[in-house]
Amino acid sequence: MLEQLKEEVCEANLLLEHYRLITFTWGNVSAVDPKREYMVIKPSGVPYEELTPDKMVVVELKTGKIAEGSYNPSSDTPTHRYLYNHFAEIQAVVHTHSRWATIFAQAGRGIPALGTTHADYFHGEIPCTREMENAEIETAYEEETGKVIVERFASLDPLSIPAVLVHSHGPFTWGSHAKKAVENAVVLEEVANMAYHTLLLEQHPKRTMDQVLLDKHYLRKHGKNAYYGQKRQG
Amino acid sequence: MLEQLKEEVCEANLLLEHYRLITFTWGNVSAVDPKREYMVIKPSGVPYEELTPDKMVVVELKTGKIAEGSYNPSSDTPTHRYLYNHFAEIQAVVHTHSRWATIFAQAGRGIPALGTTHADYFHGEIPCTREMENAEIETAYEEETGKVIVERFASLDPLSIPAVLVHSHGPFTWGSHAKKAVENAVVLEEVANMAYHTLLLEQHPKRTMDQVLLDKHYLRKHGKNAYYGQKRQG
Amino acid sequence: MLEQLKEEVCEANLLLEHYRLITFTWGNVSAVDPKREYMVIKPSGVPYEELTPDKMVVVELKTGKIAEGSYNPSSDTPTHRYLYNHFAEIQAVVHTHSRWATIFAQAGRGIPALGTTHADYFHGEIPCTREMENAEIETAYEEETGKVIVERFASLDPLSIPAVLVHSHGPFTWGSHAKKAVENAVVLEEVANMAYHTLLLEQHPKRTMDQVLLDKHYLRKHGKNAYYGQKRQG
Amino acid sequence: MLEQLKEEVCEANLLLEHYRLITFTWGNVSAVDPKREYMVIKPSGVPYEELTPDKMVVVELKTGKIAEGSYNPSSDTPTHRYLYNHFAEIQAVVHTHSRWATIFAQAGRGIPALGTTHADYFHGEIPCTREMENAEIETAYEEETGKVIVERFASLDPLSIPAVLVHSHGPFTWGSHAKKAVENAVVLEEVANMAYHTLLLEQHPKRTMDQVLLDKHYLRKHGKNAYYGQKRQG
Repeated sequence: MLEQLKEEVCEANLLLEHYRLITFTWGNVSAVDPKREYMVIKPSGVPYEELTPDKMVVVELKTGKIAEGSYNPSSDTPTHRYLYNHFAEIQAVVHTHSRWATIFAQAGRGIPALGTTHADYFHGEIPCTREMENAEIETAYEEETGKVIVERFASLDPLSIPAVLVHSHGPFTWGSHAKKAVENAVVLEEVANMAYHTLLLEQHPKRTMDQVLLDKHYLRKHGKNAYYGQKRQG
Repeated sequence: MLEQLKEEVCEANLLLEHYRLITFTWGNVSAVDPKREYMVIKPSGVPYEELTPDKMVVVELKTGKIAEGSYNPSSDTPTHRYLYNHFAEIQAVVHTHSRWATIFAQAGRGIPALGTTHADYFHGEIPCTREMENAEIETAYEEETGKVIVERFASLDPLSIPAVLVHSHGPFTWGSHAKKAVENAVVLEEVANMAYHTLLLEQHPKRTMDQVLLDKHYLRKHGKNAYYGQKRQG
Repeated sequence: MLEQLKEEVCEANLLLEHYRLITFTWGNVSAVDPKREYMVIKPSGVPYEELTPDKMVVVELKTGKIAEGSYNPSSDTPTHRYLYNHFAEIQAVVHTHSRWATIFAQAGRGIPALGTTHADYFHGEIPCTREMENAEIETAYEEETGKVIVERFASLDPLSIPAVLVHSHGPFTWGSHAKKAVENAVVLEEVANMAYHTLLLEQHPKRTMDQVLLDKHYLRKHGKNAYYGQKRQG
Repeated sequence: MLEQLKEEVCEANLLLEHYRLITFTWGNVSAVDPKREYMVIKPSGVPYEELTPDKMVVVELKTGKIAEGSYNPSSDTPTHRYLYNHFAEIQAVVHTHSRWATIFAQAGRGIPALGTTHADYFHGEIPCTREMENAEIETAYEEETGKVIVERFASLDPLSIPAVLVHSHGPFTWGSHAKKAVENAVVLEEVANMAYHTLLLEQHPKRTMDQVLLDKHYLRKHGKNAYYGQKRQG
């Protein structure tokens, strides 16, 4: 079942290695079918050179049960599932421990919008979740990880800020399909790198970019008045 | 028309990837014909692996109209055009979001001349533009970007400092032909990297190199008394 | 003798280069046979492109004498031997001067546990040894290096923290077999890199991650209740 | 003449690119013949992909005149020549603008000995020259560069510290033959990188490593009691 989606998800997982976002097996990509009944996700702990579409695991979004696949799904599966069930607009999720995003997560800080590279993809600060409570960690840890992400987006739009940092852990990104969610993970890493070094260079690390410039660049690429790329406007 | 120039511009755009100055499609190179009637520039948002000379777009320098090409030109085209129309000495322009130059742009700081690597290419500090006004951002944003660059060079010579940082955005470089403008973009990135780390190491970050040494190295490579390379004097 | 072990040790030494953990010949891997009678170790100062299994050196664990091999063993052999003779649970040892781990060693600081990447592999801070005394350096230096490592682990479990930093020198890692010890060296380097930059970003550099989260991530991957990977629990 | 030396020098120049020590043509290697009559050096400003042994330039050590070769020698030739004429023990010289060594040069600081990686190659701090006087820069600049290096080594042994940083410029290294001088340039860069980051991490940046440990590591690899590598003692 869902053969094409398995291919897309497998390919997107391999892209994590291509873009040097992961070490060993530390990352996973998933995507959902158009009816949002199932998610397809990477098996847990399988070396990237052995990943093939038929090893992808199909999980029921409602129940979390394995619908197809002979491997254990990624241990982060409950986090992915929670995000799909609460962010109705997203079709794919990526988790990595990519270096510069993880450094911000370890510091417990969001990534402030400091330039137009950030603004081209993220319409404001990329937030960091709160620290999790002991009870959250000791019980359904991976599902609770999804909950603190959704909690953090209570007043944010996941479509205009398609990334989050989980405190002391690392980033999740998402998008309209698997490859787009990986693209957002690549950009997140570059944006994190540049923000990090800007903060160390500057004397006033709380400064962010001009809001009008942020809007301009984000809306140059997104929404009905976008004029970047090859879709010519009427 | 301008087939050779299209080839040069296409090849120079591909060099941005070769020298790791860009992520995805975040960069563009243009060049003008000898009569300065037309500029040839990269199409907007086309993946680098699909770039071919015939996809380059020809734009009239005077009017900004597309003279040839079935693709949208880079969204930064009005900035390039403004630079050609006001810096009569330059034949090619490069824009990237290369990491270390962009970090200085995000910090709103110029890159001070701290060593002879800088002096070999840039005869003084590489300047950063002022922040743009809301009205400038909200109207003809890309053309206004060209205007703040030209404004910043009011008392500077674009030939002896062939690079600028646009505040909160990233670098533009230029040169006598497309490949030379790319070379300047490569050197800018290396010089920015070394200046960044020198500033963090030093106790007195405002210090710059000795002016006589700056002149010596710049003039060893440029002007009538240059003695670097294979053009033997007298 | 021990032909298979020689192959494994040779291959693991070549992995140091593959993972960019070494410059020139600055690293060595060894492993012991199941009866813990012999260790197999890299020859000293032989270029990596010339390493073959038959050049590995077999050393008696009890006496330190060369049992087989026409090359000098690594000059760090006495350190490896001391570790095997005092950490009964380890079967392989890796020594490198990998960049970020060495930076912490040069600063004389352990690597604090700042995130789940660390916790997935190391159950707490990766310790740094004390400075060695002059008498220790001037006599049996390499064996004394082993002693200060063992001394540092007096109240630590080498299996749950399979790495150490030798003061002013560099890291040693270990594991259940040669390839696993190299994996730990790769992870150590990534963890050191991220800890370094987190410490520079944060205002309160002594902060470490939540202990419950540290336990959770370590035990997700290790021990009888581990649930990462493909070994399905009853 | 000196065909073998030309081959060695050409190959060593190409190694600068292999080890990523240079950008474009920013580096040069030279070596002298056993009788110290001639030096062979890279031509000035020739792209690395066009370098061949027959393009190397032969220069008389005593007079500085070109003895053979149809290209201009490197513009840094007078510096190389001055070093050969005043450091009788060295047979090869390398100049680069390698990133981390140049950062220290731009800061006007020597590289302190902070760990055994440094001690394995350099028996103490790698010094930085004083700033040059205007008269020195404006006249025989390249020869004067050699003079400030030699001046800096008045009480230092060039064999035990085979590297120097020229203030606001970059490093020179040397050795017993061209490839060894390049090896020293590679190590210098790694040592500079690690020292830089150690200094930023530490609270007391003036601290250096223990002198006995410095001696031990240097003498493990150099001199009559060295025991690293395959030359078995007695």
